[in-house]
Amino acid sequence: MDERGGRVVLVGGGPGDPDLITVRGHDALLRADVIVADRLGPASLLREIGVRGEVIDVGKRPYHHPVPQERINELLIERARRGEYVVRLKGGDPFVFGRGGEEVLACERAGVRVEVVPGVSSAIAAPAAARVPVTHRGVATGMLVISGHDELSYDVLARWPHTIVVLMGMARLPEIAAGLIAHGMPASRPAAVVQQAHTDRQGTVRGELGTIAGASLRAGLGNPAVIVIGEVVDVLGEPASTPPLRALAALG
Amino acid sequence: MDERGGRVVLVGGGPGDPDLITVRGHDALLRADVIVADRLGPASLLREIGVRGEVIDVGKRPYHHPVPQERINELLIERARRGEYVVRLKGGDPFVFGRGGEEVLACERAGVRVEVVPGVSSAIAAPAAARVPVTHRGVATGMLVISGHDELSYDVLARWPHTIVVLMGMARLPEIAAGLIAHGMPASRPAAVVQQAHTDRQGTVRGELGTIAGASLRAGLGNPAVIVIGEVVDVLGEPASTPPLRALAALG
Repeated sequence: MDERGGRVVLVGGGPGDPDLITVRGHDALLRADVIVADRLGPASLLREIGVRGEVIDVGKRPYHHPVPQERINELLIERARRGEYVVRLKGGDPFVFGRGGEEVLACERAGVRVEVVPGVSSAIAAPAAARVPVTHRGVATGMLVISGHDELSYDVLARWPHTIVVLMGMARLPEIAAGLIAHGMPASRPAAVVQQAHTDRQGTVRGELGTIAGASLRAGLGNPAVIVIGEVVDVLGEPASTPPLRALAALG
Repeated sequence: MDERGGRVVLVGGGPGDPDLITVRGHDALLRADVIVADRLGPASLLREIGVRGEVIDVGKRPYHHPVPQERINELLIERARRGEYVVRLKGGDPFVFGRGGEEVLACERAGVRVEVVPGVSSAIAAPAAARVPVTHRGVATGMLVISGHDELSYDVLARWPHTIVVLMGMARLPEIAAGLIAHGMPASRPAAVVQQAHTDRQGTVRGELGTIAGASLRAGLGNPAVIVIGEVVDVLGEPASTPPLRALAALG
């Protein structure tokens, strides 16, 4: 362990709203000497919380390459070795497609103290923002979470009768929907896309698996967004009044 | 909508530690006139937060029946109609096996204003407490969450190559492990049981699918516990020092 008191804390920043970070994560941000944030670890969160530490953005921006994972690991280790309190802020939860495990391993191998503060995962909270409970008695007794960036086993997925949540899947939504349908999932299965849940740019489209990709495109929804597929989409129904989509043109 | 200002807020209390509730959930608890809590919506959380409102325990205790869901719904509606700020506190997230959807529907049908504050789900945070990231690049690119209380489709589950998390599955762990193995999942697949994650009663057993039920029994682990199955169990390895199991005899 590092003797000069430096440490790395991986913090799950939650789905986007500054109020949806945990109390422990909030405290860690206030204490941090330096905050290493993804683009998705929302800038508004840091502004609203009023952090005093240095903020380093390692996230991907349009037309810019993100900082490679190896360089992020080095940065965390380097700053902790200076004796600093380093917060690595991630969207959602650090262990749900957040590469948190890789950062924990890198720190531990370097002898740097590291801990993890879980967060509210967008896999659950983004559907909730669109009035979709991921489980519901008599409707869905399980959920499956996948990333659109990875290779998908459509034969297994198409046979899963309960909720499927796809993170980072917008670019491949037409392909994913077609793959599921080709392997036997009904095209009529309810589906929804929730863009930037729990922020003032939230936008939602609801429909069916067979038509959701086209509907999202027409509505101008883009990343970051969460796709949810399953009968749970229809359980609570539409909200009484849908908030308007805002600032869509500005999204990547 | 109710005209006297009453409302119901469903709050995800997180996995057990008072610091792991969201900032918004914490604020709601402080504001509440009445808090309707499950046994799993941890009492220590309410003590540490120092709530001023009345606390009603509707959870299941050993040898006592829990308050039926319908009666809970009535209670929420009744108190909100008196103009009270009612917090329905649940463990984890309200929409992950929390019956949150049922309570939302009941309130809305009664014309009572209701909102949902997501929480840190034990499905993700309990494995994390045992150093298990539910996803990890090159190891698991998805997770599947089920409840041990429900009927399981072993044919689909056994073919799922990534992480499986079972909530409320301790009573049926031998049956679940046998079912998965009978349908083709290797008995050597890593598995872990995490009891009361993020509390001072946390206890962990790690092993393989084929032997985890016996190992948990010998270690005296009991509910509430989370079971995690998959190669991710071995990614980060054992902690340098394992905290001792405490007060196991007192658990239901």
